[in-house]
Amino acid sequence: MITAVLPPRILLDRWLRDWLLEDIGRGDQTTAALFLDSPPVGQAQWVVKEAGVIAGLPVAALVFELLNPAVCFTAVVPEGSCCEPGQIVAKIQGSLDALLTGERLALNLAMRLSGIASLTRQYTAQIADLPAQLVDTRKTTPGLRSLEKYAVQVGGAANHRLGLDDGVMIKDNHIAAAGGITQAVQNIRACIPYPLTVEVETESLEQVNEALASGADIIMLDNMPAELMRQAVTQIRQTNSRIKIEASGNITLETIRAVAETGVDYISSSAPITRSTWLDLSMRMLK
Amino acid sequence: MITAVLPPRILLDRWLRDWLLEDIGRGDQTTAALFLDSPPVGQAQWVVKEAGVIAGLPVAALVFELLNPAVCFTAVVPEGSCCEPGQIVAKIQGSLDALLTGERLALNLAMRLSGIASLTRQYTAQIADLPAQLVDTRKTTPGLRSLEKYAVQVGGAANHRLGLDDGVMIKDNHIAAAGGITQAVQNIRACIPYPLTVEVETESLEQVNEALASGADIIMLDNMPAELMRQAVTQIRQTNSRIKIEASGNITLETIRAVAETGVDYISSSAPITRSTWLDLSMRMLK
Amino acid sequence: MITAVLPPRILLDRWLRDWLLEDIGRGDQTTAALFLDSPPVGQAQWVVKEAGVIAGLPVAALVFELLNPAVCFTAVVPEGSCCEPGQIVAKIQGSLDALLTGERLALNLAMRLSGIASLTRQYTAQIADLPAQLVDTRKTTPGLRSLEKYAVQVGGAANHRLGLDDGVMIKDNHIAAAGGITQAVQNIRACIPYPLTVEVETESLEQVNEALASGADIIMLDNMPAELMRQAVTQIRQTNSRIKIEASGNITLETIRAVAETGVDYISSSAPITRSTWLDLSMRMLK
Amino acid sequence: MITAVLPPRILLDRWLRDWLLEDIGRGDQTTAALFLDSPPVGQAQWVVKEAGVIAGLPVAALVFELLNPAVCFTAVVPEGSCCEPGQIVAKIQGSLDALLTGERLALNLAMRLSGIASLTRQYTAQIADLPAQLVDTRKTTPGLRSLEKYAVQVGGAANHRLGLDDGVMIKDNHIAAAGGITQAVQNIRACIPYPLTVEVETESLEQVNEALASGADIIMLDNMPAELMRQAVTQIRQTNSRIKIEASGNITLETIRAVAETGVDYISSSAPITRSTWLDLSMRMLK
Amino acid sequence: MITAVLPPRILLDRWLRDWLLEDIGRGDQTTAALFLDSPPVGQAQWVVKEAGVIAGLPVAALVFELLNPAVCFTAVVPEGSCCEPGQIVAKIQGSLDALLTGERLALNLAMRLSGIASLTRQYTAQIADLPAQLVDTRKTTPGLRSLEKYAVQVGGAANHRLGLDDGVMIKDNHIAAAGGITQAVQNIRACIPYPLTVEVETESLEQVNEALASGADIIMLDNMPAELMRQAVTQIRQTNSRIKIEASGNITLETIRAVAETGVDYISSSAPITRSTWLDLSMRMLK
Amino acid sequence: MITAVLPPRILLDRWLRDWLLEDIGRGDQTTAALFLDSPPVGQAQWVVKEAGVIAGLPVAALVFELLNPAVCFTAVVPEGSCCEPGQIVAKIQGSLDALLTGERLALNLAMRLSGIASLTRQYTAQIADLPAQLVDTRKTTPGLRSLEKYAVQVGGAANHRLGLDDGVMIKDNHIAAAGGITQAVQNIRACIPYPLTVEVETESLEQVNEALASGADIIMLDNMPAELMRQAVTQIRQTNSRIKIEASGNITLETIRAVAETGVDYISSSAPITRSTWLDLSMRMLK
Repeated sequence: MITAVLPPRILLDRWLRDWLLEDIGRGDQTTAALFLDSPPVGQAQWVVKEAGVIAGLPVAALVFELLNPAVCFTAVVPEGSCCEPGQIVAKIQGSLDALLTGERLALNLAMRLSGIASLTRQYTAQIADLPAQLVDTRKTTPGLRSLEKYAVQVGGAANHRLGLDDGVMIKDNHIAAAGGITQAVQNIRACIPYPLTVEVETESLEQVNEALASGADIIMLDNMPAELMRQAVTQIRQTNSRIKIEASGNITLETIRAVAETGVDYISSSAPITRSTWLDLSMRMLK
Repeated sequence: MITAVLPPRILLDRWLRDWLLEDIGRGDQTTAALFLDSPPVGQAQWVVKEAGVIAGLPVAALVFELLNPAVCFTAVVPEGSCCEPGQIVAKIQGSLDALLTGERLALNLAMRLSGIASLTRQYTAQIADLPAQLVDTRKTTPGLRSLEKYAVQVGGAANHRLGLDDGVMIKDNHIAAAGGITQAVQNIRACIPYPLTVEVETESLEQVNEALASGADIIMLDNMPAELMRQAVTQIRQTNSRIKIEASGNITLETIRAVAETGVDYISSSAPITRSTWLDLSMRMLK
Repeated sequence: MITAVLPPRILLDRWLRDWLLEDIGRGDQTTAALFLDSPPVGQAQWVVKEAGVIAGLPVAALVFELLNPAVCFTAVVPEGSCCEPGQIVAKIQGSLDALLTGERLALNLAMRLSGIASLTRQYTAQIADLPAQLVDTRKTTPGLRSLEKYAVQVGGAANHRLGLDDGVMIKDNHIAAAGGITQAVQNIRACIPYPLTVEVETESLEQVNEALASGADIIMLDNMPAELMRQAVTQIRQTNSRIKIEASGNITLETIRAVAETGVDYISSSAPITRSTWLDLSMRMLK
Repeated sequence: MITAVLPPRILLDRWLRDWLLEDIGRGDQTTAALFLDSPPVGQAQWVVKEAGVIAGLPVAALVFELLNPAVCFTAVVPEGSCCEPGQIVAKIQGSLDALLTGERLALNLAMRLSGIASLTRQYTAQIADLPAQLVDTRKTTPGLRSLEKYAVQVGGAANHRLGLDDGVMIKDNHIAAAGGITQAVQNIRACIPYPLTVEVETESLEQVNEALASGADIIMLDNMPAELMRQAVTQIRQTNSRIKIEASGNITLETIRAVAETGVDYISSSAPITRSTWLDLSMRMLK
Repeated sequence: MITAVLPPRILLDRWLRDWLLEDIGRGDQTTAALFLDSPPVGQAQWVVKEAGVIAGLPVAALVFELLNPAVCFTAVVPEGSCCEPGQIVAKIQGSLDALLTGERLALNLAMRLSGIASLTRQYTAQIADLPAQLVDTRKTTPGLRSLEKYAVQVGGAANHRLGLDDGVMIKDNHIAAAGGITQAVQNIRACIPYPLTVEVETESLEQVNEALASGADIIMLDNMPAELMRQAVTQIRQTNSRIKIEASGNITLETIRAVAETGVDYISSSAPITRSTWLDLSMRMLK
Repeated sequence: MITAVLPPRILLDRWLRDWLLEDIGRGDQTTAALFLDSPPVGQAQWVVKEAGVIAGLPVAALVFELLNPAVCFTAVVPEGSCCEPGQIVAKIQGSLDALLTGERLALNLAMRLSGIASLTRQYTAQIADLPAQLVDTRKTTPGLRSLEKYAVQVGGAANHRLGLDDGVMIKDNHIAAAGGITQAVQNIRACIPYPLTVEVETESLEQVNEALASGADIIMLDNMPAELMRQAVTQIRQTNSRIKIEASGNITLETIRAVAETGVDYISSSAPITRSTWLDLSMRMLK
């Protein structure tokens, strides 16, 4: 079962309105001119053109609802289904102008999100039998982060923090500016909302030890060779069993399993978002 | 020389503000806590990690400028340059908090746009010696259309219409709703701003003839086999030399040259946008 | 039959909300204080006070709907009707507070739009039997362009481009900056979305010839005497029958027919918008 | 000397940004394409094409400043000056792209506001030697009210309330709903901010008396014949010398003086706004 | 009976949407994760935890309505009721996720507004038998002014002007800048909408006399001892019975009655807003 | 030293603009009319009128900067200083209209924030020698949360989560809906960004044990008697030393020390925000 959470409706409405305006501009010249009087009702289907995991159907439904609340968009398969070319994933019925004007935005969203879900699923399939979990990063398309992270969930992975404000991540530049891991963690802990966790990026066992001593909640092992990673995991587990361990750095379909086998809890990768292409979908009007 | 036009500053400012807020939320917990007093000045470089065409540097500069007008972002290579792994493309100097808080958004934009420019360049390279021009479509990431179309220009292709309001495109569903190409063109011409052009999608020679008779300005040959496309081109050219001819449908790096050789003026494809991945860039702080 | 296209609902809603707030501010002190409990239902009529062409009734209906979805606004005459003083053009029924609070904005819109439609109709009546078409310009009231251009359509004329982005218009200053018509057209063609048309403003036969050679899609004859205009039309038609010809410059009710008789396709004038006054309408409450 | 107050800068900026976007849309295709690199600096003049009162120059200056803070717009005549055809009213120097892209909005504003100021001046000239003052109404172009009311001030008249929230105006429909003038005034006084004044619309001496008894601050004499108006004025003055008296209803250039001679304090008319046309201005680039 | 007027719905909707987003951010992580499928319907009650005057129930209802129009929020007591600890003031029924996500904002609003209404009631109780009326000031929480002024009305007091634009208040700094009360009043009268009233702040009988001579509509007696205040009242009443008199300056529950007994019309105090704490309310889910 | 982090500038600017518009509306009628030409430069001081902790000076500075970038606002004491009545805390120099128009908003913010900081300091003073830390809640004024939480930091306490999205808090209603603590924690962990912490509200030792077993990161002891709280703390510490313990429920100046002595890590209370009044500040113009 898919455990993916859509952004709140109040945000979705705002975004969809902006995106509709981006496409419609001063008006859909083609469609508006055709239906000066009452437009006829039409029916359409959404068809998958290549194999993949479908995501974004509930968002697509909202696009048409915003244009005309009477349009009825019905998902035919559950969100997150593996689909074959030719498979019908949704049926739409409603005023023809809403169908034609909303088609592009609705499809663009679903194609992009399905592309992400599909590649995510390929990654998670490599480590399905291992405890390690794939998580995303902040490398997301500007303006689309929440939806792209939703697609990552649909694909079977988990989310890392959503922005700069719901988690602390101390990178090498922060460490250098603060004068060491210990000082950085201490300064930041003194200011942040207390429930936030503090993650520290490390590149050596020495840094791992310093992070452990500093009281970090999450330790990221950045670009470490497998053997070094295994040592780091052992060291951290021995010191404190509740610290979460994240591996990071150039994760590919080929390397992800080896990383997972080092015993880390999380493997973060931007690939499901930055390396995915769109899943081809199209809308067919029915006569 | 690159002939690419950035969206107007007044729009860029609005978008960048929204995108910064998407990432920063209620505050950059890590960076803000580190620099309670006056943050030090830092220097950084942007390095290309894989071969490709760079795009988006002027937009990245605006990200830092919005956070702190005193930050100085200098592109080291011209927009649209072919870069090799390891090449430095920009230098940044300024308040360390602005550099750290703006890094992700600036890179996300440049990586996405460079990815598009890079794939576009591969497509245009196939037909560089032929008169046909590659153009994009409305399959663009919601909220990012103008910038993605800019990246397509940086990659060497041209833009199709920007939205539903700056050009008319009559597709099969419009034709069916209007009761034929002739009727559709006539109804729409009666309503639209007179300088707008009318494009008609055709799938057969019969439809091409009807489009010619209807007074279309642009005729799109949709998914036609090469031979049929050649016949269509001949027929259109004989009838009226000013009508623009666009080929469309499943254009790939393998097929684009054959399509261009049919003599069409434009080849539209969503591939540079929907099939491209991000170009890997990273920011290195200098000591 | 009127062929006029309203701006998309998604834009109308946004504008009407802003305009309601402009008038209501922190609250309608008079009406809100009167109806602390449930306001009674009232009925009203809209009456035309002077002869003219009615425009804007569908927009007025939305004003009341925004304030209270239960208000029922019914147009009694079709949009674009010629009305006589005393004629009832709409009936309204609904909660009295919505009627009283919305009255001014709804009337302001309809009076302004009807004023434009009325003067437009006077202009188009002068050339109704000739092929030339009257078109508007970008001289429109800031914030009201789309609605004013809609009113021009209701009055029987057509629209020129809607903004700076859906058509190219090369004026003398652009020509000077580029170093000639040929260079200007060439530079601009290299950047714009390919379906956009390029219009060149000319003031002499020499410029007309240069525009023809440059590949302009539309040639504007600016402020030319009738005889010169006729020569220009002849020359253009002989060279290319698909180039559209637009006459411009100080068009009045007295001069428009003579201009149309030169054989141009379009006559652009800001007069229907900049020289029109409001058509007097008023709302009468029924007991 | 002109005593006219511009809307606050914080509001002007917001409006001008919206209006620039209305015109520019996704970009000024003509100008942006011409100046891909650094645009040259240009100089221009604004010339009045017909006699009238100039208004709006400070707002026009802001249009260019928003596009490019380095543009220098200098008014050559004081706001509110009577100008002759051919007179230069402003000089502009700055980046040519800002001049060309901002020209239309800046001129549209100044032409509209100058048209209002010009007609207002004709009305106020009729009663310049009398104590009565001309005031405007809420019949203003949606979105432009504050600027149109500013133009009325530039023309020499005063402003009535700015919206539904800074003054109470009890009309016949309010009176009917409340069950009489007395009841309406009493109910409303119980709710409104105490410094607000209450104006009552009257159509007969009987209503004038009821308004006087109710404690109204302003009494409007609506559409009364001159003789009746004079009687009403006498009666009000005898009862209370601090009550302000406003005449209203179909004021024209021909009738305004007779109304003023009845001794009323204010004469409200929408004519300066609803009956004015634009004052013709144009921008000339200098070589 | 309470005579309090809520801000217009069009404003409330805008604010509530912003405030919901302030709390929800990128999503209610706790609630959204619990109800991935259809959330159950729940019932809840609002209970008052300390004695006070209830205010804000209609606004709370809108919070839930915005999240889910099907939620039914029913006020059990009239707005402005005096409540005892343990008293139930509202019942809510609807989708459990809307109840849990909206709870905090709805309560925060009602608790803050009830706190203001409660303290206001204490002040007004001191002078209930005297003609003087308590009024508020512009010392209000940024962003919440209209609602806080509504709560002041619910508490039994009246509102002073709502902002800087619906009334003129000439303070000592304005007087100094203008060079005296007379000059200040004259300059301002020449610019403002004519129905606006002009209030002058005075600190001595001499200033009172100058304000009287200047034609002020309201005279504020600022921080005067009771005896001096009485003299000022007498002097003003003798000169003109329609001038409103406002007392101001460090009004407390102990001093307000003595001030009222000087015969002033209004007593302005920020205390009901700046000295009030929140009234404790809580939401109880019913099983 | 104060460790308090202001909200990001990009958010502050947006809010301050909205709040200025709330007060200014269509214009500051008093001030704008006085300074039609160039307003004189003035100087002012901010004086504390009652003992307390000052907070909000950097925000006040931005208010004036937004109105006029040339205004110079200088804090005379560090943020978080304990001030005595009569103490000067800031000096301002600049255009008199900006000083007069911005005065109210700037003071309203600083008075509200200083009030919160002052009461917070009283609470933290009670437990200064104990390890327990005072933290705030989500009971904050709508629209002002980030600034109020900043004031809590200035007062010496720490922040709890900022909204519904940067931490999970499982309350009794969530537990009931999920069918138990274990089920609730498990369902939520499966959906949330992995770095988020999960807090569980408990009311008995039984619930504490269930929370411990469920893997909660933070356990809240809600309204427990001191003895029970002590037992809970012992039990939690024995089980896992990294779990954070928060006490909650009717914390007062009298009870806070006893709660802190139970050994909990955090004591959450809304009192610093909901029970604080404004600190009296005023602005004095200098001659």
